[in-house]
Amino acid sequence: MSQRLDDIATALSARLEGDGSLTITSAAEPADAGPEDLALAMQPAYAERLPEGRARAAILWEGADWRALGLQAALFVQRPRLAMAHLTQRLDPGPEIASGIHPTAVVDPTATIGANPAIGPFVVIGRDARIGDNARIASHASVAEEARIGDDALLYNGVRVGARVVIGDRVILQPSAVIGADGLSFVTPETSGVEKARSSLGDQGEIVRQSWTRIHSLGTVIIGNDVEIGANSAVDRGTIRATRIGNGCKIDNLCHIAHNVVMGDDCLAAALTGIAGSTVLGDRVVCGGATGIADNLSIGSDVIFGGGTKVLSNVPAGRVMMGYPAVRMDQHVDMYKALRRLPRVLRDLASRQKPVPKSGADD
Amino acid sequence: MSQRLDDIATALSARLEGDGSLTITSAAEPADAGPEDLALAMQPAYAERLPEGRARAAILWEGADWRALGLQAALFVQRPRLAMAHLTQRLDPGPEIASGIHPTAVVDPTATIGANPAIGPFVVIGRDARIGDNARIASHASVAEEARIGDDALLYNGVRVGARVVIGDRVILQPSAVIGADGLSFVTPETSGVEKARSSLGDQGEIVRQSWTRIHSLGTVIIGNDVEIGANSAVDRGTIRATRIGNGCKIDNLCHIAHNVVMGDDCLAAALTGIAGSTVLGDRVVCGGATGIADNLSIGSDVIFGGGTKVLSNVPAGRVMMGYPAVRMDQHVDMYKALRRLPRVLRDLASRQKPVPKSGADD
Amino acid sequence: MSQRLDDIATALSARLEGDGSLTITSAAEPADAGPEDLALAMQPAYAERLPEGRARAAILWEGADWRALGLQAALFVQRPRLAMAHLTQRLDPGPEIASGIHPTAVVDPTATIGANPAIGPFVVIGRDARIGDNARIASHASVAEEARIGDDALLYNGVRVGARVVIGDRVILQPSAVIGADGLSFVTPETSGVEKARSSLGDQGEIVRQSWTRIHSLGTVIIGNDVEIGANSAVDRGTIRATRIGNGCKIDNLCHIAHNVVMGDDCLAAALTGIAGSTVLGDRVVCGGATGIADNLSIGSDVIFGGGTKVLSNVPAGRVMMGYPAVRMDQHVDMYKALRRLPRVLRDLASRQKPVPKSGADD
Repeated sequence: MSQRLDDIATALSARLEGDGSLTITSAAEPADAGPEDLALAMQPAYAERLPEGRARAAILWEGADWRALGLQAALFVQRPRLAMAHLTQRLDPGPEIASGIHPTAVVDPTATIGANPAIGPFVVIGRDARIGDNARIASHASVAEEARIGDDALLYNGVRVGARVVIGDRVILQPSAVIGADGLSFVTPETSGVEKARSSLGDQGEIVRQSWTRIHSLGTVIIGNDVEIGANSAVDRGTIRATRIGNGCKIDNLCHIAHNVVMGDDCLAAALTGIAGSTVLGDRVVCGGATGIADNLSIGSDVIFGGGTKVLSNVPAGRVMMGYPAVRMDQHVDMYKALRRLPRVLRDLASRQKPVPKSGADD
Repeated sequence: MSQRLDDIATALSARLEGDGSLTITSAAEPADAGPEDLALAMQPAYAERLPEGRARAAILWEGADWRALGLQAALFVQRPRLAMAHLTQRLDPGPEIASGIHPTAVVDPTATIGANPAIGPFVVIGRDARIGDNARIASHASVAEEARIGDDALLYNGVRVGARVVIGDRVILQPSAVIGADGLSFVTPETSGVEKARSSLGDQGEIVRQSWTRIHSLGTVIIGNDVEIGANSAVDRGTIRATRIGNGCKIDNLCHIAHNVVMGDDCLAAALTGIAGSTVLGDRVVCGGATGIADNLSIGSDVIFGGGTKVLSNVPAGRVMMGYPAVRMDQHVDMYKALRRLPRVLRDLASRQKPVPKSGADD
Repeated sequence: MSQRLDDIATALSARLEGDGSLTITSAAEPADAGPEDLALAMQPAYAERLPEGRARAAILWEGADWRALGLQAALFVQRPRLAMAHLTQRLDPGPEIASGIHPTAVVDPTATIGANPAIGPFVVIGRDARIGDNARIASHASVAEEARIGDDALLYNGVRVGARVVIGDRVILQPSAVIGADGLSFVTPETSGVEKARSSLGDQGEIVRQSWTRIHSLGTVIIGNDVEIGANSAVDRGTIRATRIGNGCKIDNLCHIAHNVVMGDDCLAAALTGIAGSTVLGDRVVCGGATGIADNLSIGSDVIFGGGTKVLSNVPAGRVMMGYPAVRMDQHVDMYKALRRLPRVLRDLASRQKPVPKSGADD
């Protein structure tokens, strides 16, 4: 993966100063960089550690004096994290999955495999499944009957794709992601305590002893293009219609997307986020880590949820939300500051009111 | 799976009007329904979209005029979600797992497999394991030594059943569910900061630098009949006795049931719920998504936890709880409403009290 | 696994009274104990149930009269949970994984396997991977190219170890743990709403419709000695440097350790804990269940987080924290008690202030 620095500069839309013929094989933090590494020193604080390493070239901040830093060349970029994206994309060797179909893989004869596959050991592909071109499917993954996966897919080890699931192009599924498990959907013969407690906000009425009857998941999952889903995450199939994840969504590890959920395009959900059944998200919704969204809600486009937010009601487009239950982030900050002051305020109130006689029966 | 509408009516205890000889192969939302689909239009709002599809038959609400809706037949049901359960059960094709034992499966010669198995590729079944009749075990699942699984089980792809685990009849384990991992149980040589902080509610005393010694999990997991456990969930084995999950429990994706936990019958836990070590739940406890229950607690029967609830103390039977820490839901609503008003109340108080001199040292 | 009671006494540093020649094969709770079980009755309440079982020997509390309890021998220990650790370690049979390398395993010819391996069916080991001595690797696990695993490792079924991951000695990875998935790291071409909302605490400014560009994970994961990681947990690889988990860390099921995180030694994280990208923890940090720690934070050594805590800012060493957002546990208790009183306080205030005219426009 040896690359000339001037080629990297072009790819990153970076301004090159110094010797563009240097070759780079990887990227490193300044103190760890060897002579073949491009050091990442976008801020002066990072550059201070360049002398600890042996970098010959670095990405620097605008205005930095690369010669004084002992370098032979430097790249200057407008938006460092975007440069990181392009740089790491060029340097990532990707997982090693041998070309072709491993002899241990069990591929149903009715399945269609596109051009140029790399399918690893112990992969199972079911009846009438269709896999696009350039698929990379790592060991132990399974793709069930009638599932469809687009071109340029990367399925890591142990991924589970259920029957009839449809997945777009350039999708990445991290290890043990499960797409198309059955939804958790149960009903009791008579109105349940949960139904009553939800409508009354807390009163479940008379308790009836009853068991759960299963609502089967006849729907599937439809996932757009350019979607990534993290390790050990789960996207359940819909009850009747499909659970849908729009183009460009990025879902982290250990997330749960329940049956019938619809996510718009370019949503991002950090780890341990859960979205309950039938909730609909617009485009570009961002869920911080451990966000929870209750069922049957509507979340507008461009909503941002801070980490840990638990969402119990609809949210209009463009809101920035936080807390449990979720409120606007600025309101959450006000409430939280007031709560921090509250113990002292109550002590103050008590001391002021001592002379006043008790207010009576409701105390 | 083609079925006559009058047969479906009987199975759903539904009242049929119109042509019962119509045949149905699947169910669909009104706008998506083809002529072989039964449209689900239990409310007028749903029925409005019937003209967008081509349904000939639908499930409607009591009093609806099916002829005016352009249908040839209609079903009327008392409790729509219960009808959904019966209908979807009839229409679910289930996963395709070929009859017999796939030649790649590794089944220990001492294992006992019941009648009529369907065991997929790369399944591993250990020494003296016993699998009941009509087992369906999808690819890549493993059942370890001396584990027992009842009749009519469905284990999805990549399920892990540990040694000596006992599972009842008609259980469904979704992909990558892990039953019988070791519990997280560690002890320090001297009293730990955690032990001290718990008893003092916040003071861990003098810090002692010490490592963790492992308490091994000698117990197992015992799961009743008619239990379902979601994708990527984990139920840990007990330390000495067994972790127990009662009959009819339904556990969603990404849930954690720790060592020694006892769940009664017919409990339901939505996704990302965690129940910590040695906690005991009664029957029919319902945990909304992302519920967390601390260790060594006792939760009575018929308790309902709203989504996101974190339970730090025992809960009597029949309570509806919410919040962090959990309180009765009605109390939670009161506290939350008061907290929303608090910033303004404090501003008001401050403006009233401006003339009053500061109350002194404790301010 | 039959063992003499006097040998067990020595191993547990326990004081033996009675017949040390009794043989023990397992441990049990008093009511369940058979004649070959050592009954665990460290408290009088437990001992009450000894007559329900058939134990001949028990671990008792200091001062207990073992003869009166009908026993033939007894062990007395200083710290019962520590004794449990030593006892269960001696009695744990461990998982059965046959010695040698199962014929179905796919081991790359360039991989190095240490002495005395036990590698199960359908295991895949990649190019130039190095596995230490006495490795036990259960079915369906995979170890990718250039990964290194130390001596005496135990990898349970379906574990995923990614390329170039480095793991120390005596590590235990529970089923379906995923070490070395790619981090969730994305950037938008222009400043995103999330970046703006974070700096303004709630205002995302003008909304720009843009998609996510992937920052690839070139770094790896480095895990120390004596680490245990739970079922279905995930530790992501770093972006440039490695994600690091120190010696002796114990991580429960369904935990998420994001890219670039550094955990010191002897940390413990209970289930459903998430630690976001680039956060650094000191030594001996304890995370109760469902703890969430935001990205790019610094958590000092010996910090203890109560269950459900969501950490949004740096925490100095030695603190005991709780709540969302996290505060000192004693402060959390104060705030929570005040909040419980708040609805009544506001009602009281309102009744006192009725005669006072409204304070004006900001009401």
